[in-house]
Amino acid sequence: MLGLSSYAGVMESLMNRAEEQQPSSPLTNSRSKKQESSKNQKPRLVGGFVLVHAGAGYHSESKAKEYKHVCKRACQRAVDRLKAGALAVEAVAAALVELEDSPFTNAGMGSNLNLSGEIECDASIMDGKSLHYGAVGAISGIKNPVLVANRLLSEAQKGKLSAGRIPPCFLVGRGAHDWAVSHGIPPCPSEKMATKFSLSAYKRNKRKMELAEKMDTGHNQTKRRRQSNENENGSGGLDTVGAVVVDLEGNVAAAVSSGGLAMKHPGRVGQAAHYGCGCWAENAYNMNPYSTAVSTSGCGEHLIRTMLARECSAAMQSEDAHQALLEAMQNKFISSPFLSSEDRVLGGVIVLRCCRCVEAPPSQNIQGILVEFLWSHTTESMCVGYMSAQDSKAKTHISRLPPGTVPWTMFGH
Amino acid sequence: MLGLSSYAGVMESLMNRAEEQQPSSPLTNSRSKKQESSKNQKPRLVGGFVLVHAGAGYHSESKAKEYKHVCKRACQRAVDRLKAGALAVEAVAAALVELEDSPFTNAGMGSNLNLSGEIECDASIMDGKSLHYGAVGAISGIKNPVLVANRLLSEAQKGKLSAGRIPPCFLVGRGAHDWAVSHGIPPCPSEKMATKFSLSAYKRNKRKMELAEKMDTGHNQTKRRRQSNENENGSGGLDTVGAVVVDLEGNVAAAVSSGGLAMKHPGRVGQAAHYGCGCWAENAYNMNPYSTAVSTSGCGEHLIRTMLARECSAAMQSEDAHQALLEAMQNKFISSPFLSSEDRVLGGVIVLRCCRCVEAPPSQNIQGILVEFLWSHTTESMCVGYMSAQDSKAKTHISRLPPGTVPWTMFGH
Repeated sequence: MLGLSSYAGVMESLMNRAEEQQPSSPLTNSRSKKQESSKNQKPRLVGGFVLVHAGAGYHSESKAKEYKHVCKRACQRAVDRLKAGALAVEAVAAALVELEDSPFTNAGMGSNLNLSGEIECDASIMDGKSLHYGAVGAISGIKNPVLVANRLLSEAQKGKLSAGRIPPCFLVGRGAHDWAVSHGIPPCPSEKMATKFSLSAYKRNKRKMELAEKMDTGHNQTKRRRQSNENENGSGGLDTVGAVVVDLEGNVAAAVSSGGLAMKHPGRVGQAAHYGCGCWAENAYNMNPYSTAVSTSGCGEHLIRTMLARECSAAMQSEDAHQALLEAMQNKFISSPFLSSEDRVLGGVIVLRCCRCVEAPPSQNIQGILVEFLWSHTTESMCVGYMSAQDSKAKTHISRLPPGTVPWTMFGH
Repeated sequence: MLGLSSYAGVMESLMNRAEEQQPSSPLTNSRSKKQESSKNQKPRLVGGFVLVHAGAGYHSESKAKEYKHVCKRACQRAVDRLKAGALAVEAVAAALVELEDSPFTNAGMGSNLNLSGEIECDASIMDGKSLHYGAVGAISGIKNPVLVANRLLSEAQKGKLSAGRIPPCFLVGRGAHDWAVSHGIPPCPSEKMATKFSLSAYKRNKRKMELAEKMDTGHNQTKRRRQSNENENGSGGLDTVGAVVVDLEGNVAAAVSSGGLAMKHPGRVGQAAHYGCGCWAENAYNMNPYSTAVSTSGCGEHLIRTMLARECSAAMQSEDAHQALLEAMQNKFISSPFLSSEDRVLGGVIVLRCCRCVEAPPSQNIQGILVEFLWSHTTESMCVGYMSAQDSKAKTHISRLPPGTVPWTMFGH
């Protein structure tokens, strides 16, 4: 049986006050729909908030410190921007740059190598205020793919190009690289983006693959494919980093960046570049009382086919956020008819939702924002960090599947 | 005010009978939610059905015959496959090959050229039975991009690759080309894919663009952008071709293929390669009584940001198909908050839905399929064709916006 780990936290923001309480410790559960919700979390007061992840996959204990540390730095970067008056979309991009720059994450520097030994990255960003979106897929030679996605977003917001041409929201490959450079984003030699670690992982994976193919010779294709042992070799490295942010004005934004599956085919684009699949952000409007932001991680193909970011965002409009997320992970991912042929579905999400609905006497004229943040994953582990702009104290956590549920073994580093 | 044209037809299939009636003539309307629905259409009997489009955009009267002719040929190709026992997904791919091969459509042969004078194509296909999906983006040097998308779909259905790797569902650029060739799809020199017509359109567009940029020199960027006159130069050529099919077993499939906007930036990927945006197909299951298939056309960025294919498919589960489509086009596209900054939204959809729900006495043991097919567009025109496998007579039609609504002038050929 596939396990599901999840956590829900609540923060309450009364902009004019500074009182503060600690959130309770994480809840962990396995698919129980009757799981106690976030009732136990005591609210605390924030003004601006960021939640980041360094991938849903497998995080070894030996590197736990590094993963947590990069999450902390990413939170700090976003909060610094928020305090300087930046909007959510700028802050979320700043967090992503930090996550991409770490050689320990599978994004930007130190990304997984593809079949040809090259690095090709995917990234996207969405602004809940303008609902604009920018994405790059299979881009090489750019240190921070999220900055290209962000620039596409901001260029599109400026309106049409010369002669009435519509600006692109999604660029791939060489064209994406050239567009980035022509917009002032410096190129970075690919060899500088590979690390000793990613190169040795590539060599190891290549040997493994060749051995697996050699062993399969003589069997028919179907048999060969079914025989591949997923306990020995799973389906990807630590896939994807991401962040979700709410700024001081209550706008939300989300972003995601990934080096993709180890040993992927050149040109393969995963969920990190896919609209509705890698990230989603929507400010509250009309019938939607909550602003929501989601970033996903895991096996790109599973996350694409279930459009998990958008599905989780849509689910977040119901009252109980934690219950809604558990149900979305169960019904729209684990039991999704779109993945019925898969023996295991691999993914994780971080979610942030907020509304201007804090109970305060109208006479006090206090505008409050209630921030709820959640994560959930079916992978063996997921590394997350979060920070409010009011206290600037990062909390980091490696969430692991409860004992007795099926672990997921990575393929890659 | 932006116009909306739409049409709804109904066909009823009682597999064991051959009786036949003509459908009524197309309904045309402008955004009226009280528009008479498909009540006037008299049902006729079919076994397998295909609906194709040769783009929502602008179809000149002088080439109307050619557009209709290619739609007819595409219908015939699909129906031939259906009669030979093919499933919907094979039939829809066959229709797309015919549409791509025409030098008059903006897909495959004769595609729009990008800024660098190259052809880069997008295509995707979805199988409503398996819910699998395959897509290619910004692919060059392949005559029929839909065949690569279809091959990705069928390869993914075979399960994992060696060493437990998950097969890709979306490939772009050079990687997509190389994957195609390694899977037996022959390369085609790019110069063979350009036509005299597409080359002269490129030269004309390039001059126009240079002139527009020259005239703008000295103005600030924002001003320059806002000044670009969309009445003079619209936003794309005849964008995208597509088809939706139901086979004799009642399975649905959808596909879409596009050369993209004229003068697009290299590496730009439009809705035709985007999951949920270019095409969608879902067989009936559980709570969804209807099988639905959708293919879209128009401005890729608008269709991506509204996920129009999936939205229309979801809307089709309500009782009145025509009303549901009108409301979806109005609420999820024309008035979508995702496009609120756009002065004009450009798109068209073809939709097919069916259910095993024909009223026949149970004693007769007749299994019937009710097929409804619809189209709607905000662009000046949309060229469609349809055919049932029972009579093999293609109907083609160039749907135009009602007089008094804003026309859309193309940028391209």
